[in-house]
Amino acid sequence: MTGGTFDKEYDELTGRLFFRDTHLPEMLRRGRCRLDVTLETVMMIDSLELDDAGRAQIVKRARESSERAIVVTHGTDTIVKTAGALAAAALARKTIVLTGAMVPYAFGSSDGLFNLGSALSFVQVLPPGVYVAMNGQHFHWNAVRKNTDTGTFEAI
Amino acid sequence: MTGGTFDKEYDELTGRLFFRDTHLPEMLRRGRCRLDVTLETVMMIDSLELDDAGRAQIVKRARESSERAIVVTHGTDTIVKTAGALAAAALARKTIVLTGAMVPYAFGSSDGLFNLGSALSFVQVLPPGVYVAMNGQHFHWNAVRKNTDTGTFEAI
Amino acid sequence: MTGGTFDKEYDELTGRLFFRDTHLPEMLRRGRCRLDVTLETVMMIDSLELDDAGRAQIVKRARESSERAIVVTHGTDTIVKTAGALAAAALARKTIVLTGAMVPYAFGSSDGLFNLGSALSFVQVLPPGVYVAMNGQHFHWNAVRKNTDTGTFEAI
Amino acid sequence: MTGGTFDKEYDELTGRLFFRDTHLPEMLRRGRCRLDVTLETVMMIDSLELDDAGRAQIVKRARESSERAIVVTHGTDTIVKTAGALAAAALARKTIVLTGAMVPYAFGSSDGLFNLGSALSFVQVLPPGVYVAMNGQHFHWNAVRKNTDTGTFEAI
Repeated sequence: MTGGTFDKEYDELTGRLFFRDTHLPEMLRRGRCRLDVTLETVMMIDSLELDDAGRAQIVKRARESSERAIVVTHGTDTIVKTAGALAAAALARKTIVLTGAMVPYAFGSSDGLFNLGSALSFVQVLPPGVYVAMNGQHFHWNAVRKNTDTGTFEAI
Repeated sequence: MTGGTFDKEYDELTGRLFFRDTHLPEMLRRGRCRLDVTLETVMMIDSLELDDAGRAQIVKRARESSERAIVVTHGTDTIVKTAGALAAAALARKTIVLTGAMVPYAFGSSDGLFNLGSALSFVQVLPPGVYVAMNGQHFHWNAVRKNTDTGTFEAI
Repeated sequence: MTGGTFDKEYDELTGRLFFRDTHLPEMLRRGRCRLDVTLETVMMIDSLELDDAGRAQIVKRARESSERAIVVTHGTDTIVKTAGALAAAALARKTIVLTGAMVPYAFGSSDGLFNLGSALSFVQVLPPGVYVAMNGQHFHWNAVRKNTDTGTFEAI
Repeated sequence: MTGGTFDKEYDELTGRLFFRDTHLPEMLRRGRCRLDVTLETVMMIDSLELDDAGRAQIVKRARESSERAIVVTHGTDTIVKTAGALAAAALARKTIVLTGAMVPYAFGSSDGLFNLGSALSFVQVLPPGVYVAMNGQHFHWNAVRKNTDTGTFEAI
């Protein structure tokens, strides 16, 4: 987990969105997920604030992980950029799927649970490589962009 | 769609669960799904009430469909049996993924959205065959059972 | 608390509605309620199964309570009957408001939180007597009935 | 309705909270409210941005209204100030209850439905005057403040 809209919460004292703990454990419980998953919070930030050092940290964790299948939850604004950084790291033999949400999980109308189910499924069956999973689809890291007008992802 | 817990609603006049319309369109909207999906309600029943004739109807629809990838939403109690019927129909070249929910989508705590994201993802990448997708996992139709004590699916 | 639709939950193993613990503490937290409330679970049943002995038990607890203001959460099917039993007990100097829900709180679409806010407000300002609070309204115990066709309460 | 946290929504394109339409009609439906209510959107803003001219507009609407009982939904930050402006207008014979929410209704964890049920109940039974209803309580307009550390309202 790296944060992103997925994990934003509403601060009722300031009226702003902020990060506290990740919602992933609760989401996995709600999905009755029985995969053998290890959760790791690398950071908890808005992806617009993610700089090269932060991106390098995500890559480092992915490289050092002993897992062959990794899902990265990430803000959608720079998810494609982080996908590129992961691909550049040439983590052969690993399948990495990045996913995010357009609406915080804490909101009733969030797409987060759908995307999480999708990413966890793609990561089990796609060949090694780096992918973005959004909108029920999966894209190669270098063949996708976020359409900021529609808030959806599309092939390029 | 064939019904199942996925689509059950609470009848506030009788206090019982019942079926009205499917929730799939709303679920796909919530998931911001951009797949090219054709929705078809074959029936809307509790899978415990699904008999051989009903099962044959599901098989018939799957056979007559021109789609190569089919997700069947289904009650979990007899989902494995219907998976078997679909497999017996030898629909070569089709990938069919059955999924369900343990809690109705209309309940806040439903696993439905997670399972739908999962099933729609598996169906795009798994080779032709009949599968059950539950709990973030996928199983071959003849290698799975529902554990009625835990309400989860497990490999056999 | 006496149960009723308010507190029904979905049993994912049997597909039936059942009672476990009351949701009142969670509801009061969600409402950021700062009233000095003492919670007491008298029973946890469907009001259609409430017999005279059970009703007598509710009356007994209300009589023995040292509170001047009491909210009774109750199934809507026989809420008017229990209101009558409480009124017959002539608990002078107590304001008692019965309320319920048409949809379980555990469902996203429940009216429970609205009704609870309503009942807790009426009970603070209405003169001693026994009332039913539903649909944003309050009714004297002997001037109300449930319209089972519409699922709403109306003056008689 | 004047806006406030009650009616804030999440803008999935910008990641910010904003106002679109009021949620009051949906909230009244969810509460199965059968009161004869006329809804009127006076403005749709964050109460921190409400200036004297805006406040005068709210007072004007309240004065011109033919209703004897008025609920004003309002941001909590300056709700007490608007209550004072309404009281200063000396709208004798009207009962006015202001209420708000700490969490937007669009979030699953909102206190809005509880507060709305509470305000609509208080307004029916309190004598003419101007009140703030929050946290299950009601306060005279000149005897309440928002505790910005706790996000709750307290008597002064």
